[in-house]
Amino acid sequence: MNNFIHCIPTRICFGKGQISHLSELAQSGSKVLLVYGGGSIKKMGIYDKALEILQGAGLTVYELSGVQPNPRIESVREGAKLCKENAIDMVLAIGGGSTIDCAKAVAAAACYDGDAWDLVLNPGKIEAALPIYSVLTLSATGSEMDRFAVISDMSKNEKWGMGSEHLIPKMSVLDPTYTYSVSRRQTAAGTADIMSHTLENYFSPNDGFIQARFCEAILKTLIHYGPIALAEPDNYEARANLMWASSNAINGFVSDGYRVGWCVHPMEHELSAFYDITHGEGLAILTPHWMKHVLSDATVDKFYEYGINVWGLTPSEDRFAVAEEAISCTRDYFVNKLGIPATLADVGITDEENFQVMAEKAARGCRGCYVPLTPQDIVEIYRAAK
Amino acid sequence: MNNFIHCIPTRICFGKGQISHLSELAQSGSKVLLVYGGGSIKKMGIYDKALEILQGAGLTVYELSGVQPNPRIESVREGAKLCKENAIDMVLAIGGGSTIDCAKAVAAAACYDGDAWDLVLNPGKIEAALPIYSVLTLSATGSEMDRFAVISDMSKNEKWGMGSEHLIPKMSVLDPTYTYSVSRRQTAAGTADIMSHTLENYFSPNDGFIQARFCEAILKTLIHYGPIALAEPDNYEARANLMWASSNAINGFVSDGYRVGWCVHPMEHELSAFYDITHGEGLAILTPHWMKHVLSDATVDKFYEYGINVWGLTPSEDRFAVAEEAISCTRDYFVNKLGIPATLADVGITDEENFQVMAEKAARGCRGCYVPLTPQDIVEIYRAAK
Repeated sequence: MNNFIHCIPTRICFGKGQISHLSELAQSGSKVLLVYGGGSIKKMGIYDKALEILQGAGLTVYELSGVQPNPRIESVREGAKLCKENAIDMVLAIGGGSTIDCAKAVAAAACYDGDAWDLVLNPGKIEAALPIYSVLTLSATGSEMDRFAVISDMSKNEKWGMGSEHLIPKMSVLDPTYTYSVSRRQTAAGTADIMSHTLENYFSPNDGFIQARFCEAILKTLIHYGPIALAEPDNYEARANLMWASSNAINGFVSDGYRVGWCVHPMEHELSAFYDITHGEGLAILTPHWMKHVLSDATVDKFYEYGINVWGLTPSEDRFAVAEEAISCTRDYFVNKLGIPATLADVGITDEENFQVMAEKAARGCRGCYVPLTPQDIVEIYRAAK
Repeated sequence: MNNFIHCIPTRICFGKGQISHLSELAQSGSKVLLVYGGGSIKKMGIYDKALEILQGAGLTVYELSGVQPNPRIESVREGAKLCKENAIDMVLAIGGGSTIDCAKAVAAAACYDGDAWDLVLNPGKIEAALPIYSVLTLSATGSEMDRFAVISDMSKNEKWGMGSEHLIPKMSVLDPTYTYSVSRRQTAAGTADIMSHTLENYFSPNDGFIQARFCEAILKTLIHYGPIALAEPDNYEARANLMWASSNAINGFVSDGYRVGWCVHPMEHELSAFYDITHGEGLAILTPHWMKHVLSDATVDKFYEYGINVWGLTPSEDRFAVAEEAISCTRDYFVNKLGIPATLADVGITDEENFQVMAEKAARGCRGCYVPLTPQDIVEIYRAAK
C-alpha cells in the first residue's frame, strides 16, 4: 500500500427530501450563483423548491443556465464574470456532473485574475475558489464529492480534467428520487461511467488488498442495480445504490493507497473532444477492447481475480480462460444488460482520420497507468472498437 | 437505504514516516496536551520523535500519561484539569484506542464546567471540544477516525460509549510500522474488535446493498491479513491493511444508510466493566454464540449471504447448513486462526453471579439491534459462552 493523505470533507445529505439542507448555504454568505443546464430541473420542480429554500434563508440568487454536456469554457467564463461583477459568495450546481463541473470551474475562475482556461490547463494555479454546493440529479461522474472538473474547448477539440482540493464541494444533496426521471440511455451511460471510474482504480500497478475489495463492492453494486434501474426507473433502492456508488467510486476512497493511473478515461476524452459523443457510452465501448489489449502473462492474475470476485466465475486452472470470460462478461454487461452501443460506428464515428492525433494526446493522459500504452497501442484500441 | 448525513472530516496521513505531519498542530494553537499510556511509545522512539517535531513547530507540550486499557474517568478528570489550568489549545493522543478515547473525553471535558462523567452519561451535553489529534499505534477501535469514546468508572462497574461530532479527530497519523511491535495477543484482540465493528453493521435489520458489500470487503481483508500479521509481525501490507480496515469499519462509511443497532459490543462492555477483560477477546468469545442464538427462519438468508460472500462457502439449497457453517468459520477464525481464548472461563470468568445484572444493563444498549434481545436472551448467550 502506498502512502497517502485521505481527506473527503464534503458533507453529504443523502435521501429523499434532503434538499431542505440548502438553507445551510446561508453559512457561506448572502449571494449564490445557481448553475444549471436546461429546463429539466424546472419540470421536476427542483428549481422552484430550491429557490423557495434559498430565498427563505435570505439568499439572493443569480443564475447561470444552459450548461451543456461536456461543459464549455464559454459557460465558465460567463459564470466567473457574473460572480466578479456581483460579488457573489458561493456557487450552487443543480444537475449532473457537467453542471457541477462547470460550477466548480466557475468557483475557481471567480477567484482568478486571468482567463479561466489557464486553470484548466494548469490547475496548480487554483489558489482559491468560492464555496461549492451541489444538488445531484444524475449518478455518474462523482463530481458531487470529488476534486475534479472536466471542461472542454470545442473550438480547439480540447477536453481536460482539472483537479484541486479547492474544487471539493462543501456540501452535496443526494436525493435518489431526483434520478427517477433520468432517461434509460443516460442511466446506462452514467452507470458505465461509475463502472469505468472503479475499473480505472481496480486495475492498478500496485497491490492494495482492501482497496481492491472496496472496488469489487462497488462493481457488484453496479452489476446488480444497473439493470434494475433501467427496468424500474423509480426503484428507490436501485437509484440510491447507484447514487452512493457514483460518489464513492471517485472521491478518493477506493484509490487512496493505490498507485492509480487512468487510461480509458483519457482515451475517451479524445473521442468526446473530437466527436462530442456521450462520455459513458465512449467508456463502455472502449473498456472491453482496452482489457483485451492489455491481457497478458503479466496481467492475467488480476483479470482472473476480477472474474472470480466480481463476476462470480468458477475458479479454474486455465487462468486465461477465466480472464477472457471476465472480459466477455464486461462487454455483455454494457451491451446487453445496459443496452449501450457496442461500437464506435454505432455512435457515429466511422472514419479513422483523427485516431493518430487523438492517440498522441491521450497517451499523455495515460502516463503511469496499469499497463503503459503508446500512441500506437491506443490507435489499435480505437480501431478494435470501430 | 435509510436517509443519512455523511461527514468524515478527519484528515488521515497514512504510511511510513507520516508523523512529520504533527508539525501541522501549530495551526490549532501553541499548547498541546500529549496523552499516552505506558512506556512503549518511548521504547519505540515515537515519543522522542513526536516531541522533536512538536517543539520544532514551536509548541509547548504538557503530558497526561498512564492511560490504562478501558480508560478510566479519573484520567479524564486529570487531563481536563491540566487543560483548564494551563489554557491548553489541543490534545494529541499517541497510542491505541484507549488512549485516543481518553484524549477525546479530555478534549470535551476541558470545555465543560461540570464533572466529566456527566458527558459520558449524556454526550448531548458536549457542546465543544479542544481540537483532537492522534498517532495510532494499535489497529482496533477505529477511534482515530470516529466520533466515539468509551470510558469506564470501575468503582461503579460502569463502561459507556459516548458519541459526538465534536469528538471526531481533526487529523490522525496512521503509520503501520508503529504496529510492528504490537504483541500477538493484542494484534489478535484488535483484529477481533475490527471484525466485530464490521459485523455489528453487517447484520442490520434493513437492507443496504452497497453497505453490505463494503462490510464484506473489510471482513475479507481481516480474514486474509489477520493471521499474516500474527505470523509476520513486520509484514507492512498486513499491518497497513488491518490499520486502514480499523478506521473504515467504524467511521460511518459502512454504516451510513444502514439502520444499525449494535448488540455484541454492549454485551461485551459489561464483561469488561465487571471483570476488566480485554475487549477484543470478549467480543470474539461472544460473537459466535450471539450468532447461534439469533439464527432463525427470519435471519437465515443474511447468514447464508455471509457464508457465501465472506467465507466463500459453496452455495447450497440447505440454507441453514451454510449459515451454521459460516458461524463455525467465524469461531474457527477467532480461536484457531487468531488464537483467541474460546470461552469466558479461559479469560477467568467462571461464576455466573453478575450475569443477570450485566444482561439487564446490556439490554439497554442493544435497543434497535438486528434481532431484539431481552435480558434473558443475553444471560443465555453469556452462559453459552462460559
